[in-house]
Amino acid sequence: MTQNNWSVPETEVLQRVHERLEGDGADVLATIVDVEGNAYRRPGAKMLLDEAGEGVGAITAGCLEDDLLAAAESVREHGRPELITYDLMDDEDDVWGLGVGCNGIIDVLLEPLTETYRPAVEAFADGRDVAVLTALEDSEGALERGDRAYYHPTETQLTTPDGEPAPAWPNELADPAGDLAERGRADTLEIDGRGRQLEVFIDGLAAPTELVIFGSGHDVGPVTELAAKNDFRVTVVGFRGSVDLETRFPDADETLTTSPAAVSDDLALDERSYTVVMTHNFIDDRLTVEQLLDSSVPYIGLMGPHDRFEKMLAEFDDEGRTFDEEALSSLYTPIGLDLGGGSPYQIAHSIVAEILAVANDRTPRHLKTREGHIHDRVTVESPSK
Amino acid sequence: MTQNNWSVPETEVLQRVHERLEGDGADVLATIVDVEGNAYRRPGAKMLLDEAGEGVGAITAGCLEDDLLAAAESVREHGRPELITYDLMDDEDDVWGLGVGCNGIIDVLLEPLTETYRPAVEAFADGRDVAVLTALEDSEGALERGDRAYYHPTETQLTTPDGEPAPAWPNELADPAGDLAERGRADTLEIDGRGRQLEVFIDGLAAPTELVIFGSGHDVGPVTELAAKNDFRVTVVGFRGSVDLETRFPDADETLTTSPAAVSDDLALDERSYTVVMTHNFIDDRLTVEQLLDSSVPYIGLMGPHDRFEKMLAEFDDEGRTFDEEALSSLYTPIGLDLGGGSPYQIAHSIVAEILAVANDRTPRHLKTREGHIHDRVTVESPSK
Repeated sequence: MTQNNWSVPETEVLQRVHERLEGDGADVLATIVDVEGNAYRRPGAKMLLDEAGEGVGAITAGCLEDDLLAAAESVREHGRPELITYDLMDDEDDVWGLGVGCNGIIDVLLEPLTETYRPAVEAFADGRDVAVLTALEDSEGALERGDRAYYHPTETQLTTPDGEPAPAWPNELADPAGDLAERGRADTLEIDGRGRQLEVFIDGLAAPTELVIFGSGHDVGPVTELAAKNDFRVTVVGFRGSVDLETRFPDADETLTTSPAAVSDDLALDERSYTVVMTHNFIDDRLTVEQLLDSSVPYIGLMGPHDRFEKMLAEFDDEGRTFDEEALSSLYTPIGLDLGGGSPYQIAHSIVAEILAVANDRTPRHLKTREGHIHDRVTVESPSK
Repeated sequence: MTQNNWSVPETEVLQRVHERLEGDGADVLATIVDVEGNAYRRPGAKMLLDEAGEGVGAITAGCLEDDLLAAAESVREHGRPELITYDLMDDEDDVWGLGVGCNGIIDVLLEPLTETYRPAVEAFADGRDVAVLTALEDSEGALERGDRAYYHPTETQLTTPDGEPAPAWPNELADPAGDLAERGRADTLEIDGRGRQLEVFIDGLAAPTELVIFGSGHDVGPVTELAAKNDFRVTVVGFRGSVDLETRFPDADETLTTSPAAVSDDLALDERSYTVVMTHNFIDDRLTVEQLLDSSVPYIGLMGPHDRFEKMLAEFDDEGRTFDEEALSSLYTPIGLDLGGGSPYQIAHSIVAEILAVANDRTPRHLKTREGHIHDRVTVESPSK
């Protein structure tokens, strides 16, 4: 497997799944459905394995992949999903011991990639949240391993891949599915109701976090590149149209040329939009920041020293423009974490690090000083007994 | 100018200068020699401008570049260095006002690229610190603008580009030059001695910071890639030789296959080597960490949860191995800053962010919460009056 395929951003894994659904390949999709203890990746991590033994995406740091390719061959041959448990806690002296999964037990679901997965990739492509429900065990046998249902935020009940009602699926799964979809997290739930034991993997695929960058200088390039690698959906907004944004910023998902005064009209900004203002023009920056402060965006990163923003605030004040505390607390200037670097990439690295921390609600600090687990534990309540 | 040329890592700018010295082009080198107020880049930022109007590197975020290309044309034509001042403080209502340089005055030296620059790029290629001294003004006229001398840590006095003694250069410049070379910083000094006023730009080019990554799993790839973009010189060390490291990690400057027990023998590790241990094999990690703790490296990042390291420490303890506090404080595990991401690139981003913070002696936090200037001010004492 080539390096490039392994280390693609998560968003690209789903794009590749989408592409492969259009083809006639016999690909196998591997997904971590459960983790006990510490592992490199979390539930929901995916890898697509094709017939040639090439994989896209990563579910471990690399050591299990050979084993997975063999398992995928078996799944391809039998045409049925398989659930494989890698127990890396058992044998501490084994070469894997405390190794690959760091110290965990990983359950991996391997399944032939079929049309039942299409609603997932289509929602993702459209920028809609979705949760994919996959049956792992059903004591009543109404569902077979690999059977699938969907949670869409706009629907009142779970649906089949064809969009029909899904009577075999307890609708009480909709609540935890909705929660996981919004947060982009995954978990395996066990339901025990009226004698039926049902084990379901719920994979919440949140729409990629949107990052809107205002500016068209060359320094926008490294920010766009590093943000895209970190799974943000990046829109670059330029003013006055003198630059061909698509050519200059090939890593942007979208580009838009508008005028500074039309920012709030031309962009759909909401509480899920992260924004960076780096036009290097004071007046353009001020017009943009004013509209962003009036919006509900959770993050406004403004390039430049703090006194530049103080001057901006003084001008707002002179004009009688005021903003509430919450809006002002979403403004980060000077932009970025204090990492000390001064090159264009180092500046971009510190900006993207800050956005990751804010988006994930983390206090930036050394992990070694943090109490508790590195990964948030998913705490979705298992419905009904 | 294409995006790629603008946003190359700093190390690549010097590599390109080296390449162009071999050719017969008439390139112009632009260097920021002084900054007053806040600017996007600091003194020492470089840009190479060729005859076709293409530039490599960045000295601003992009807006001054057209002007620089015109100035470069003039320098090329006259064959003499020029010092240009961009005053971005003057006119606040100008489109540049508080803009490009954020709020500063930038002095840029433009000069024809000549053989006098060769000792700089050769030292850089060899991994040696060096300071390039360039005359800006000399009231006595002994030195002309653009005349050059060098500080090499192994020499007792300043030398000419040909390696000869440099009598026209006051040797008291050697101390600040040595300091700037070690720290990789640049500054313009004014000397006023016995009626002679001399203004010299000293550009300290520290050898790139070395990052040694132990491990050959695919997860090493994104760390290597992002570290290289941030100007680290990356060596990937694999054990047992089952992986072709050069092919798997194209962004590594060097690769080495050795055995876990031979780490300290096969690598020259010192107080300038940053290290990351991510073999995903407990025994390999332990052997490596033991040797790193015995060395003087300032940073040992260890992948895995904290209790994995506790187990390692307990085993050291059982074997009667102890380490002093300073060594143990250089160990960072779990590795990385707390940014909350879980994808391979997000994990790599948090690792490289941590290394930048440690290498630059910064406390990772939002810059908006930091007192004082974003960039450290260079405080080299001007020699003798």
